[in-house]
Amino acid sequence: MCQLLGMNCNVPTDICFSFTGFRARGGRTDHHRDGWGIAFFEGRGVRVFLDPQPSADSPIAELVRHYPIRSLNVIAHIRKATQGVVRLENTHPFVRELWGRYWVFAHNGNLLDYAPRLSGRFLPVGDTDSERAFCHLLDTLARRFPDGPPTPAALFATLRETVREIAAHGEFNFLLSNGERLYAHASTRLCYRVRQAPFAAAHLCDEDLTMDFSEVTTPQDRVAVIATTPLTDNETWTPIPPGTLVGFCEGAVEERAQ
Amino acid sequence: MCQLLGMNCNVPTDICFSFTGFRARGGRTDHHRDGWGIAFFEGRGVRVFLDPQPSADSPIAELVRHYPIRSLNVIAHIRKATQGVVRLENTHPFVRELWGRYWVFAHNGNLLDYAPRLSGRFLPVGDTDSERAFCHLLDTLARRFPDGPPTPAALFATLRETVREIAAHGEFNFLLSNGERLYAHASTRLCYRVRQAPFAAAHLCDEDLTMDFSEVTTPQDRVAVIATTPLTDNETWTPIPPGTLVGFCEGAVEERAQ
Repeated sequence: MCQLLGMNCNVPTDICFSFTGFRARGGRTDHHRDGWGIAFFEGRGVRVFLDPQPSADSPIAELVRHYPIRSLNVIAHIRKATQGVVRLENTHPFVRELWGRYWVFAHNGNLLDYAPRLSGRFLPVGDTDSERAFCHLLDTLARRFPDGPPTPAALFATLRETVREIAAHGEFNFLLSNGERLYAHASTRLCYRVRQAPFAAAHLCDEDLTMDFSEVTTPQDRVAVIATTPLTDNETWTPIPPGTLVGFCEGAVEERAQ
Repeated sequence: MCQLLGMNCNVPTDICFSFTGFRARGGRTDHHRDGWGIAFFEGRGVRVFLDPQPSADSPIAELVRHYPIRSLNVIAHIRKATQGVVRLENTHPFVRELWGRYWVFAHNGNLLDYAPRLSGRFLPVGDTDSERAFCHLLDTLARRFPDGPPTPAALFATLRETVREIAAHGEFNFLLSNGERLYAHASTRLCYRVRQAPFAAAHLCDEDLTMDFSEVTTPQDRVAVIATTPLTDNETWTPIPPGTLVGFCEGAVEERAQ
């Protein structure tokens, strides 16, 4: 099982606290030693740090932990290889451009007998089921909406339909973002926590570290954090029911559908 | 004027030495303070580090300088903004996927009255002439060869023709790579140095640093380094004549055409 971490906010926020706990799962508190990656949207741009090394030992993870990149949308992934060897081209998250925006995707699970017909517009570079599923999602969006991005509701509906088709092939927990919205699909395990006023202190599960969010936020701030399993042990996390797609926008749930 | 740095090798090589001198040009020995970026191909995968901060002060540049990522193809860029504000989405190098391979591009120059017709398959995310030119190049390749990559000779010929069209709009020094080959076009300033046996010591122009390549190479190694201006002051660099496209493969010039 891989580990997923996502963040969607209404003001640019750094992910240092959550990343500290998440990172420990890459070889220290858990056994996901087959590389890791993190993507930060900043404006329309995206910064991606990828490392085929375990995140607990990675100098790049050390940099990310201490370098407060402020972002509205973040997707991170720690890999336990199921399909595809441990190589950079198989390291999540993956990035492609559609409609003049970057799209970022990370997957936790395993898809079997999954060979979608792809038009060629988006092709996998590596050999994982995950990147194939990402190309399939974007290919479907590009063919359905050739003239540019549709309304968020139409986009959500098309995703919902395509995700159902892909999820029939196996475990398909994923995070997907275009820098504005973040979509989370649970096939087995995924949960989230929305932090908003009144803010309180949170304590990590994977490290003995506490952060008092009331000291670093304003009353208008809102941050949704999505993870494979809860990152903190003193907050309530909401499980996403299996088979559910959730769309987050500005730190809150905007749409959800089974 | 921006600064370009490229490397194309026959064995995976780290770029720490060249990057040390190159990086000094981002705010210390030269005035390119509008961000920087570097892309490393490793196998079919690519790692890109982008920073809208000056490279001389950047913690990410500090990491890259000390972290010997070994690569067959590297493209780096330090930006002096001409078109497009200083933002992450305008920071070179740019990446897209075509035919199941990543393509990386960085540009030095300025294109005027340049509004190519794009099919929509590749669209700029930011607002630079550079990203527009990259999309134009890939769009042309994708339309000309819809069934997959052509022979290297046919690819070179199509690039040559499209580059001529784009270069009619202004200064168009660029580096482009698909992880196998690296293409360099000089419109005004670009030069290269092929290092091969017998290897000798090289001394940087921008820092007082010497590296004896005979200590870290085997007789079969071959490395082509391409830069806006020579990076060392005790080696002979070959200027690329204005209007010339050069294709590098395995550390040597494979094709060139005016």
